[in-house]
Amino acid sequence: MKLLTFKYEGKEQIGVLAYDGMSIHALSDLGLNYETMNDFITHATETEWVLLKEKTNQKIGKIRLSEIEKRPPIPQPKQDLICLGINYMAHAEESARYKKEAFGGERNHAVYFSKRVNEAVADGNDILSHSDIVDSLDYEVELAVIIKKDAKNVQKEQAYDYVLGYTIINDVSARSLQTRHKQWYFGKSLDGFLPMGPWIVTADEIPMPPKLKICSKVNGELRQDANTELLIFDIAHVIAELSQGMTLKAGTIIAMGTPAGVGMGFEPPRFLKPGDIVSCEIEKIGVLTNTIK
Amino acid sequence: MKLLTFKYEGKEQIGVLAYDGMSIHALSDLGLNYETMNDFITHATETEWVLLKEKTNQKIGKIRLSEIEKRPPIPQPKQDLICLGINYMAHAEESARYKKEAFGGERNHAVYFSKRVNEAVADGNDILSHSDIVDSLDYEVELAVIIKKDAKNVQKEQAYDYVLGYTIINDVSARSLQTRHKQWYFGKSLDGFLPMGPWIVTADEIPMPPKLKICSKVNGELRQDANTELLIFDIAHVIAELSQGMTLKAGTIIAMGTPAGVGMGFEPPRFLKPGDIVSCEIEKIGVLTNTIK
Repeated sequence: MKLLTFKYEGKEQIGVLAYDGMSIHALSDLGLNYETMNDFITHATETEWVLLKEKTNQKIGKIRLSEIEKRPPIPQPKQDLICLGINYMAHAEESARYKKEAFGGERNHAVYFSKRVNEAVADGNDILSHSDIVDSLDYEVELAVIIKKDAKNVQKEQAYDYVLGYTIINDVSARSLQTRHKQWYFGKSLDGFLPMGPWIVTADEIPMPPKLKICSKVNGELRQDANTELLIFDIAHVIAELSQGMTLKAGTIIAMGTPAGVGMGFEPPRFLKPGDIVSCEIEKIGVLTNTIK
Repeated sequence: MKLLTFKYEGKEQIGVLAYDGMSIHALSDLGLNYETMNDFITHATETEWVLLKEKTNQKIGKIRLSEIEKRPPIPQPKQDLICLGINYMAHAEESARYKKEAFGGERNHAVYFSKRVNEAVADGNDILSHSDIVDSLDYEVELAVIIKKDAKNVQKEQAYDYVLGYTIINDVSARSLQTRHKQWYFGKSLDGFLPMGPWIVTADEIPMPPKLKICSKVNGELRQDANTELLIFDIAHVIAELSQGMTLKAGTIIAMGTPAGVGMGFEPPRFLKPGDIVSCEIEKIGVLTNTIK
């Protein structure tokens, strides 16, 4: 299933893409009264999940996809995003080069940081360049994992039971802020720095672990081009490791890190400027396109 | 005013300490129906603030302080805490020494990171040692600032208009996790790593910028002993800098960093072990005491 948040006739609601791929079943039309995706994720029962899958496979939805206003699948994440840093080997190399650090070619432990998101940005909407304080705006396509139920002390082997589904995010980054404040938080957390979408693809549609082509383009030019099977620390590792110490609440979003080919990886760096169009694409999920404003 | 969250007759509620310092006015007894501190912070009107101050100054509260179950003033922060790293010079020195890094004695930019808090820990409650994965448990007394209203593009001179009040936090840290995962997030975010309390002291009771004695004790032995006037980057700087790029929503908690004297600062380090009692104290706010479990 593809779960989405959208605006239709002035009302923000959640729904499921119908089997024709061109229409939507609003959850309220299916007798499920959840106002937000977070609400649905936190409270939906197994019976409701089954019902949803049956109904949406049967018929065309009442609302046409072309008539909605797109919204990010989770417009207001309940907590900050948890992000993986340098989790593809080739990106580890380019990051070290940009920071003029030696790179030993080893990654013994995952790098975890977080990203404040007051309000995510929908597919098709603008990314604010913050040009008054940002001189090095960069893109990062990432596979994002949404946690289905509270996860504590989860073993690797059970980790996928806790995955609700996947979406695409662009972990927009202000490199100079990210570097100069030592910890990456501020340079990752500016308003509008999280395009997310176009929807959540539920875990049952993607064999585990996900082996999906992942790429990004700037103004149509291919920049990042990899496969999620190349993650250094995979989803099961991350859920198991984090949940040993911290409860990952239902609705938690974990961004799995970005492959090589970001702007800072070029010599000289190729940062984003107003008017640039960035597309982030992951196989079986879709495309997330935004323009720099 | 001292705003607090507490449990009384089985019900979690919020209130204000009465002028006798030994009784509480529940907000509901004053005709204000806010269920949580976050709810109150986000929606209270200026009129309600004035009313609250008048009423609580007049008489003794119905509920005795000795009869409540203590709760952290904000049990479930709406978003991750924003924290300042190495924001007192003497702590910058001890941190560099622990990490065997050179310390040039300069701090040009603030270090910002975040801390996941699913559930804060009340004064008097236990801090989980997580001894299965943590070998270097440490304490950090900090002044925490609570933001009163959404802050965006705030000038330094106006910053204090956005401060609702202050509380004490213990930024409990697992040093080995903090170090080995490069970014500090995971080592700061384990379940139960945020004792907070005993209450919020509203900004009108503390001249700005706050010049308050701040100290911590372990089993009665003085460890940290400084004054918040020694902050390298002060509250006005932080609100102005962050709000240039990110909206600080009402209810945001900013932890201003810890002074020298933490466990990792000793040679050899003196980390916490089960049974240890940690007290964090800030002048005009109070004492926050917790036992390691």
